[in-house]
Amino acid sequence: MEEAVWKATDVKEKVCEWRSPEQLKDLLDLELREGGEAHPQILQRCRDAIRYSVKTGHPRFFNQLYAGMDPYSLVGRFITEAINPSLYTYEVAPVFLLTEEAVLQKMIEIIGWQEGGDGIFSPGGSVSNMYAVNVARYHHCPDVKVLGLSALPRLVMFTSQECHYSVAKAAAFLGIGTNNVYVIPSDKRGKMIPAEFEKQVQRAKDEGALPFMVNATAGTTVLGAFDPLEEIADICERHNLWMHVDVTNSVAWNPHKMLMAGLQCCAFMVRDKTNLLQRCHSAQASYLFQQDKFYDVSYDTGDKSIQCSRKPDAFKFWLMWKAIGTKGLEERVDRALAMARYLAEEIKKRDGFRLVMEPEYTNVCFWYIPPSLRDMADGPEFWRNVHVAPVVKERMMKKGSMMVGYQPHGDKANFFRQIIISPQVSREDMDFLLDQIHSLGMDL
Amino acid sequence: MEEAVWKATDVKEKVCEWRSPEQLKDLLDLELREGGEAHPQILQRCRDAIRYSVKTGHPRFFNQLYAGMDPYSLVGRFITEAINPSLYTYEVAPVFLLTEEAVLQKMIEIIGWQEGGDGIFSPGGSVSNMYAVNVARYHHCPDVKVLGLSALPRLVMFTSQECHYSVAKAAAFLGIGTNNVYVIPSDKRGKMIPAEFEKQVQRAKDEGALPFMVNATAGTTVLGAFDPLEEIADICERHNLWMHVDVTNSVAWNPHKMLMAGLQCCAFMVRDKTNLLQRCHSAQASYLFQQDKFYDVSYDTGDKSIQCSRKPDAFKFWLMWKAIGTKGLEERVDRALAMARYLAEEIKKRDGFRLVMEPEYTNVCFWYIPPSLRDMADGPEFWRNVHVAPVVKERMMKKGSMMVGYQPHGDKANFFRQIIISPQVSREDMDFLLDQIHSLGMDL
Repeated sequence: MEEAVWKATDVKEKVCEWRSPEQLKDLLDLELREGGEAHPQILQRCRDAIRYSVKTGHPRFFNQLYAGMDPYSLVGRFITEAINPSLYTYEVAPVFLLTEEAVLQKMIEIIGWQEGGDGIFSPGGSVSNMYAVNVARYHHCPDVKVLGLSALPRLVMFTSQECHYSVAKAAAFLGIGTNNVYVIPSDKRGKMIPAEFEKQVQRAKDEGALPFMVNATAGTTVLGAFDPLEEIADICERHNLWMHVDVTNSVAWNPHKMLMAGLQCCAFMVRDKTNLLQRCHSAQASYLFQQDKFYDVSYDTGDKSIQCSRKPDAFKFWLMWKAIGTKGLEERVDRALAMARYLAEEIKKRDGFRLVMEPEYTNVCFWYIPPSLRDMADGPEFWRNVHVAPVVKERMMKKGSMMVGYQPHGDKANFFRQIIISPQVSREDMDFLLDQIHSLGMDL
Repeated sequence: MEEAVWKATDVKEKVCEWRSPEQLKDLLDLELREGGEAHPQILQRCRDAIRYSVKTGHPRFFNQLYAGMDPYSLVGRFITEAINPSLYTYEVAPVFLLTEEAVLQKMIEIIGWQEGGDGIFSPGGSVSNMYAVNVARYHHCPDVKVLGLSALPRLVMFTSQECHYSVAKAAAFLGIGTNNVYVIPSDKRGKMIPAEFEKQVQRAKDEGALPFMVNATAGTTVLGAFDPLEEIADICERHNLWMHVDVTNSVAWNPHKMLMAGLQCCAFMVRDKTNLLQRCHSAQASYLFQQDKFYDVSYDTGDKSIQCSRKPDAFKFWLMWKAIGTKGLEERVDRALAMARYLAEEIKKRDGFRLVMEPEYTNVCFWYIPPSLRDMADGPEFWRNVHVAPVVKERMMKKGSMMVGYQPHGDKANFFRQIIISPQVSREDMDFLLDQIHSLGMDL
């Protein structure tokens, strides 16, 4: 607890203790042997595992779309790990099935589906997106469950060029094929262009294919852009397409991100009251979902899932929500947005920093321009040289001072993507970020 | 810790504290409100959640194919929950990616693939089976990833009638269609009949379909039967089919079951050295899997997965393995098998108990015959009356004395399925099971 909780979230400690794979293999002594080891040695292994792990709860871990540590959620996770339940049936997981239901109902209320809906927690947003594709195609062609895709016309789905890579993974995994994901161009802010979307729907129809769904993105991975949901919804209505993400048909929502519920905590929700999830995914195992039980078996919700064993990922979120209330969750989001705003303004004020664009969400994308380049004219040579992010990243990791991601994007050279996902950051952390990048990169 | 660990595994405590869904909803006060709650109240909610949860680590929880509690694994889980890592890249999860690799290599060695192989931990055996289907079809038709199933001939896969329901879920989810899972009859012990398998392969070929894989089962869910793996492998070789489970092409192995690593802990492994997992599942997200990092990016194994965020499920297993050694793991399996043997012998000795069949594994399936039926002749009326398991189950749960599953199977009336999956059970627990069923059912 001292090492993995208190020190790991202390701003005065390092974010990471970098070792190369070869060094770390030696330090950890990975080999699994015939005999066991004594307790003091096992305790040392635990300390080593903690020491060389990246501290994702540290206030200066900005590298991924999750960060921070919530104490209530952590207690919830310790409880569920000790109890070790699996959410197939009410009989084996009464508390965790009921808390899942309570959380889903509240989330559906927040989405705004006044007539209600249905949902399931899944092991990640990628899997939630797979649920969306599967439910959408089942909605269009219920025969697909039994007959498979080979008996159907070619199905086509749509997404923007800025979407998460899980959409391609879903298309491949579910037998749709990545070529049948028609990619819609985005504008320079990263938003899907509705007119281009409608053109592609028409193209699919002209080809004799069956367009069935669109994946809209509310907060893209790199730029944090929001697709124009209402215009996309209108096009979906005209062409009878399932719309995922927005409030039309289904939503994937990961409370492990900005709400800090801890990995994994991912809900998939459908605006449906016809038991679509169950019809689409059920396999009716008789040894598990017996119908002659002594209680109301409609509480045995496990067959809605594509999984058999399933972790109780809603409970930690329920406990945290109980502890801080809806208001507390709201304040977290507001605070993260305010910090992103502050950082963007600081970047505009400082020499040597340049915003890629005004942030719409909490992704703040920017270049650092070392002093040696500041007098160079803006042109191909300038942009070739601005490629300093990988070196700055290497230096920050070896120092352990912070972690922030970078990537190129379209024709734009490598830039930093600072995400304020945890509300446990301060203006000082934002200032530190910029000072640190400058001090690590000023000689480049 | 007192409630969720010590009391939850104490044989003198109850396995469950049964409440109906309506009662439990009242007791838990599920509603999520605008404001938060004070710490004493949150602490009470934690106590309630533990109290009304089923204690899956209790020595008399026999209800599912996982049970027991390993202290090393539990410590590993507390550490990973506190550290909250996600296994995309070496940069953010160095310790957990290396321990996963070490565990997979050792598991592959135990399977016996001398030339090595590849693997990935997944969120459950059902997802591992989906990996198997996806990798097998990609192996046969690499175009499927890009073109989808609509561009291919109808694919057909095979499994026995005793297989886990995840095979049907996988076929539906991956677009194969459940009708294209040709179900092979099993013999009366629950084993796939090889001659029937070969007939069905021929049938698929005669229909112009493309047979591509078989799912063989080593330990079926209800009877614990092992398919004849070597004969199935010979047929696969003759017809060029991918074989899943056995040592031919791929294996799904869940250490959260008999090895007690805690849910979820599920490995999928392929006998392949050509980077098949990566080729089949990659989406090459540039913001995550940058190729210009300062370390060897072959350690960034996340793109082998269908997930993006992924829990470090191998670490707890690694820590436990370190602590008790391969020998300790082996002793657990041996002990569970010995207990199953003991129980089967006791059932044969006692009046009023009848084995469904000699156990091959640790699933001991048996009927309880109440005294009122013992003089009745074996016939349709007798079997209609032998249907006592649901009532005995209701009584044991309301008492909280133990939990054991039941189901009908083919033409066989409801029987108990006692699984000795945790080695933390004793002969006394086996005797208790039989005494308790008799005392709960003797009046029926």
